[in-house]
Amino acid sequence: MKYGKILLEHGGGGLLSNQLIAEYFLPRFHNPYLERLEDSAVLNIGSQKFCFTTDSYVVSPVFFPGGNIGSLAVHGTVNDLSVCGGVPLYMSAGFILEEGFSVASLEIIIQSMADAAAEANIKIVTGDTKVVARGAADGIFINTSGIGLVEYPGVLSVKNIQLGDVIIVNGTIGEHGAAIIQARDNLSLTADILSDSAALNNLIACILKASSNVHCMRDATRGGLGAILAEIAKNANVHISIDEKSIPLQENVRGICEILGFDPLFLANEGKMILFCPKSDADQVLTVMRNHKHGKNAAIIGIVEDIGIGRVVLKTSIGGERIVDLPTGELVPRIC
Amino acid sequence: MKYGKILLEHGGGGLLSNQLIAEYFLPRFHNPYLERLEDSAVLNIGSQKFCFTTDSYVVSPVFFPGGNIGSLAVHGTVNDLSVCGGVPLYMSAGFILEEGFSVASLEIIIQSMADAAAEANIKIVTGDTKVVARGAADGIFINTSGIGLVEYPGVLSVKNIQLGDVIIVNGTIGEHGAAIIQARDNLSLTADILSDSAALNNLIACILKASSNVHCMRDATRGGLGAILAEIAKNANVHISIDEKSIPLQENVRGICEILGFDPLFLANEGKMILFCPKSDADQVLTVMRNHKHGKNAAIIGIVEDIGIGRVVLKTSIGGERIVDLPTGELVPRIC
Repeated sequence: MKYGKILLEHGGGGLLSNQLIAEYFLPRFHNPYLERLEDSAVLNIGSQKFCFTTDSYVVSPVFFPGGNIGSLAVHGTVNDLSVCGGVPLYMSAGFILEEGFSVASLEIIIQSMADAAAEANIKIVTGDTKVVARGAADGIFINTSGIGLVEYPGVLSVKNIQLGDVIIVNGTIGEHGAAIIQARDNLSLTADILSDSAALNNLIACILKASSNVHCMRDATRGGLGAILAEIAKNANVHISIDEKSIPLQENVRGICEILGFDPLFLANEGKMILFCPKSDADQVLTVMRNHKHGKNAAIIGIVEDIGIGRVVLKTSIGGERIVDLPTGELVPRIC
Repeated sequence: MKYGKILLEHGGGGLLSNQLIAEYFLPRFHNPYLERLEDSAVLNIGSQKFCFTTDSYVVSPVFFPGGNIGSLAVHGTVNDLSVCGGVPLYMSAGFILEEGFSVASLEIIIQSMADAAAEANIKIVTGDTKVVARGAADGIFINTSGIGLVEYPGVLSVKNIQLGDVIIVNGTIGEHGAAIIQARDNLSLTADILSDSAALNNLIACILKASSNVHCMRDATRGGLGAILAEIAKNANVHISIDEKSIPLQENVRGICEILGFDPLFLANEGKMILFCPKSDADQVLTVMRNHKHGKNAAIIGIVEDIGIGRVVLKTSIGGERIVDLPTGELVPRIC
């Protein structure tokens, strides 16, 4: 990496983020848990298997249609635990507040965290609050870390993806990114898009109960479905083929993307996950998902067509094909 | 709390911090783990007992004599686990970087984290990096959360403090606070004070091996020895008597405090802990501490003189007495 200064793209979940991790963090913090590069570290402690994850939230604006930084911080940690097969148990909450931040806003944010945690059945058991002088932070940043208990007998890992696996998404994509764009927008687009921010632990518990052959799950957050698929294809060294027509998309998200020139494939989600499983299990997984409030629009969007080459090919709705690459950064900074 | 806006003092570890926690966080996040208000939550999962802690680091300047934000972030989490009786196992690292932050500085900070983690035998297993635009943060903030395994058979808690317990500190106080003041100073005071930032897990393991009667331990960070003692006295509802003459203090720290008008009792430490144990165990505990590099200047500084009234009384070196109250905020903002 030939950058002397940190760029916004280093935090975008795309190519530059991956380079920063690969060239700076991994060589120094190296250990097999971190090197798996999954959403949570999976740890054996005594006779039990745990997962452990962390994320910092810097979303701007703090309040957006469909949620706020508090609910988002809980959902993000719950989902990172859940896609690794963990049942979320306990989480931490670390606040960095800017001097002058509204106490009333803080109150709403804390209440949203409490509500989201209660809904996901996770307890906030430890915390920290720091305040920095006016101008040294932007309102509020929250870090949440979480611990989950892993009891799923199968292995959930990009390394476990198999030839012929189908790829399932639990619903329409891009709403979180579109909601943030809309909230920041000065054009007064009134598309009424709500963030999809949601805790997926219950949906995932239902899926894992229905199939013991799920090979890999990931939540499609920063960088959207496109970045996550490109990263998985690279790390699993598989050729993924996806069909644009099959990807669920709300009309209002399609609309805002057309107006502003965004590709919904790279817009962030905060309540969407993708799943790899054998074709033979796809029907039962889809049925369970479609019966759940967070999976009503679940769909098969692609297949693992080959192994030994890490790439994603999108069959476009007009019949063409294009490579889906890891974006350099992020379409929208501070999306989460 | 009658504040409409967050004040710097809400993050200082003093009275306003405690009010914010008591009036805003606890009523919403309420659960018995959080309500213990110890440095870590202690959790029973299956047949095992764990501790779990989080802290965000916003120290300014990022590099200071004796350490930097990276080593500090590891030491802080290791110590919070250790004083709750946990053997530190795994930790997370969440970075919030300001666009334009020096990659060379980041490299030094990451290396310091890796070195500190290796020394404390804790693994950094999960992480996150966010970047915000120039001006939306101040260089670098780090959150670390940690998990430890608790095997100490005794109960370590402020609720377990007993009448007659002696209070032991592992060495000279105030160096971290004084080092930060010195690093920020424009007066060119050349007192050559190094931060005491250090991982205390090995020292604490030795203590807990030597005595199974330790009642409570805390690290004396933000707010210094004074704030921690005042908080413990209140939460344990005990009258603590401490003797100023017995409190270890380096001459250069005393000097900078006299020049600038600071009270070393309220200066932050990052490698100091206090311990409550019966008088009968004090000798063996002191011996173990003094044989350890992080306890060479360990001393008995006070005693639990009465129960049923929560206060700290300091016998001053000139023969007077004064109440040691929880400070409103912090002498020095962004100390950690």
